[in-house]
Amino acid sequence: MGAPDRAEVVRSLRELVGEGAVLAEPHELARYEQGWRYGQGKALAAVRPSRTEDVARVLAFASSQGIRVVPQGANTGLVGGSTPDASGEMLVLSLERLSRIVAIDAVDRSVTAEGGVLLSQLETALAEQGMMFPIDLGADPTVGGMIATNAAGTRVLRYGDIRQNLLGLEVVLADGTVLDLMTTLRKNNTGLDAKQVFVGTSGVFGIVTRAVLRVVPRPAQRATALVGAAEGASVLQLLSHLEQHLGDVLSAFEVVSAESLAPVFRYQPRLRNPFGASLPPYTVLVELSTTLPADRVSLDDLLETTLGAMIEGGAGEGITDVFPGKPAELWDIRHHVSESLRHEGEVLGLDISVPRSSMPSFVEAARDLIAPDYPFVRVCDFGHWGDGGVHLNLVWKKEDAPRPAPELKAELQPIIYDLAVTRFRGSFSAEHGIGPHNQAFYDRYTPALVKEVCGLLKARLDPKGRLGTTRLG
Amino acid sequence: MGAPDRAEVVRSLRELVGEGAVLAEPHELARYEQGWRYGQGKALAAVRPSRTEDVARVLAFASSQGIRVVPQGANTGLVGGSTPDASGEMLVLSLERLSRIVAIDAVDRSVTAEGGVLLSQLETALAEQGMMFPIDLGADPTVGGMIATNAAGTRVLRYGDIRQNLLGLEVVLADGTVLDLMTTLRKNNTGLDAKQVFVGTSGVFGIVTRAVLRVVPRPAQRATALVGAAEGASVLQLLSHLEQHLGDVLSAFEVVSAESLAPVFRYQPRLRNPFGASLPPYTVLVELSTTLPADRVSLDDLLETTLGAMIEGGAGEGITDVFPGKPAELWDIRHHVSESLRHEGEVLGLDISVPRSSMPSFVEAARDLIAPDYPFVRVCDFGHWGDGGVHLNLVWKKEDAPRPAPELKAELQPIIYDLAVTRFRGSFSAEHGIGPHNQAFYDRYTPALVKEVCGLLKARLDPKGRLGTTRLG
Repeated sequence: MGAPDRAEVVRSLRELVGEGAVLAEPHELARYEQGWRYGQGKALAAVRPSRTEDVARVLAFASSQGIRVVPQGANTGLVGGSTPDASGEMLVLSLERLSRIVAIDAVDRSVTAEGGVLLSQLETALAEQGMMFPIDLGADPTVGGMIATNAAGTRVLRYGDIRQNLLGLEVVLADGTVLDLMTTLRKNNTGLDAKQVFVGTSGVFGIVTRAVLRVVPRPAQRATALVGAAEGASVLQLLSHLEQHLGDVLSAFEVVSAESLAPVFRYQPRLRNPFGASLPPYTVLVELSTTLPADRVSLDDLLETTLGAMIEGGAGEGITDVFPGKPAELWDIRHHVSESLRHEGEVLGLDISVPRSSMPSFVEAARDLIAPDYPFVRVCDFGHWGDGGVHLNLVWKKEDAPRPAPELKAELQPIIYDLAVTRFRGSFSAEHGIGPHNQAFYDRYTPALVKEVCGLLKARLDPKGRLGTTRLG
Repeated sequence: MGAPDRAEVVRSLRELVGEGAVLAEPHELARYEQGWRYGQGKALAAVRPSRTEDVARVLAFASSQGIRVVPQGANTGLVGGSTPDASGEMLVLSLERLSRIVAIDAVDRSVTAEGGVLLSQLETALAEQGMMFPIDLGADPTVGGMIATNAAGTRVLRYGDIRQNLLGLEVVLADGTVLDLMTTLRKNNTGLDAKQVFVGTSGVFGIVTRAVLRVVPRPAQRATALVGAAEGASVLQLLSHLEQHLGDVLSAFEVVSAESLAPVFRYQPRLRNPFGASLPPYTVLVELSTTLPADRVSLDDLLETTLGAMIEGGAGEGITDVFPGKPAELWDIRHHVSESLRHEGEVLGLDISVPRSSMPSFVEAARDLIAPDYPFVRVCDFGHWGDGGVHLNLVWKKEDAPRPAPELKAELQPIIYDLAVTRFRGSFSAEHGIGPHNQAFYDRYTPALVKEVCGLLKARLDPKGRLGTTRLG
């Protein structure tokens, strides 16, 4: 089939789902064509259905016309998976109007939401009822987007990722078929858990229009501290100690290396630096939170005495400082790491995971591997050590580099990925997903049989290969 | 192909994996042919490989000879999925010799175990290192068996089921191919999570020879109480209240109706009945457990004061009694429910789940539905209300029934399943899986597309349909 006729497509779509639901002017399309940080393309048009039936209608139409479709949530993904390709022939199917919270059931501790509901919307609605959806992220994605990327973030350690908090799903397939896997059941062992097919698979098997999510009681108190550590091994020891004694209330264990923390205080002067001029090699943000009432047990006391006893008892070797602080202030520091590094120059941000026990040796190996050939590159690591996640950022000043940034990035990325995957049995995408940005690495590292299974699923669920920009099969 | 020649098969298998690994005498085969509670058949032979390579060799051989194979763990399943059919032509592949705990990594908080490792083995090995595998069950299954049935039990409320505690897998496919999905990663978003295909699918897609499981720190203290409730609504209110205030330390919320509890005290006179002659309509076993040290917060105090405040504050309407007690003693009561009901007469035990908020109305609807036509049947319910799981047992005395038990069971089962699935959007198998026992209901209630997807997977992973006795596609 040749390129679709835009005017014709727009007219038909407007007949199907209404005038206002279809956008085709360049100035209107711009925000659908450009991702929050990554991803850029040209759209044929953008359509914003507001009901599952309309999503089904749009997809049935696109299928009949041979039009390729890219589903888009809040467009905050970090792998370029939610923007159209450069052809100008892809239809953007935005879920932004599919944004109703259908039900909150306090007894069931579940929320039913449409695919376009924002994480912040969920938070507000649930807070009113003393509950919380436990995914905590830097961005504000949609429910559908979080499912397509299996979003994770800073509290996986305690509550798990989206997969572990997803009870049911409604998905529209490429031909417009609506697959109803909606359930609020927590136990249901009746064969294949079919919803898993749609989790973390970049929307290439279907578009999530509705989901049932597990929610948790809102903590009654929270305590945080920054802990300085002289080396990676001390960080791991701290993690084990905290889990053993405070495991039930430990809700975050975020680690920032000195190389990654210095820019935060350099570019965000309003943030208080408790360490002064000499930052410890690693700073850990420890967060405790609990539903237990503060008049029965104070988390501030518990954190202080546990860390104190650890240091006095000799198990705190390498712990250099402990600074309790207000959660909002300490999180503010953590949330500015990524942005501050970007002020330092060129950044190649890599989203790696390795087994928790290998975190220090992986970062060291990455330094050793990069240093000889790229002496101008600084290895700045930070991340969710509690889950084995490390955002390894390679940073350099443009003027120090012998070659242009895109060329260097293309050289460096496979070196680190190979180290992570091959030598450390780690992952080249801990949290962000595949998308066009990781396509080549997916192709390289995924077992042939897994790709084959994806191919079989794709052949059944989207036989003409019209959905999404990622290729799993 | 005709029936396999037993002598020939046994000779070949012995050559492949050694003399002692193959059993063929009727008295040796008996225990492989008969399940712990359900399931009975005739085996061609039983083979007990002790290495993944030998599992692969056996399967490659069976595949080449057209021999059907049923994988078997501890044979404790409740749906007849681990025993051979009646043909005498199926080879039992027992995992009992694949029973090594390969590694326990305290920093990583993971354990790597072979498929035949028993739950009790895991418990012992982990306890020595201050850790725990959080699945708690009445039986002692193997790692492979738990994965094939997605085992759950009494602490899902707090820790999730097997799916939520599984990090990596090694599976041998029907043709002997070894699929390596072993990883200890907690974050790995690189497309389809292929291990999900093998979770809860009764071993029909492959045999689990090795797994990496997430473990948790061992609690430092535990507190339990029996709470009497006048009706189901009070039980739900208690659950909500406890989750809101003690959610982080609530580790079990087991509910037993008076009809199910009375037989326990009748047949187990050594167990202390704190209620005396008049049992409350519902008895809740509440368990709190935590890693937090008892000198900082006492769970016994916390449980007592929380329940006390609830009752005094007016939120405890319908709470009739609170009896704190030793965990071992109270669990002893709970663990004897199922067995004691069997002393009462004929039992049809159903493993249902419904949304948590529907628990009381479901049980009531079941009573209303059964009473008119089956006045001699008592509806005895108990289960994991915290997860929406209800073991609905229909009990009658043989002499009261107009028809033989098998006939009545075949009549009653679909009535209750239909109520659960169709009217309450529940499940006909909350925990136990499919297997031959639930095959007809799987066929009836599973969406056509899900069956089709299973068919595609089966066609690729076991094209000749040789593995297992369950049919998902």
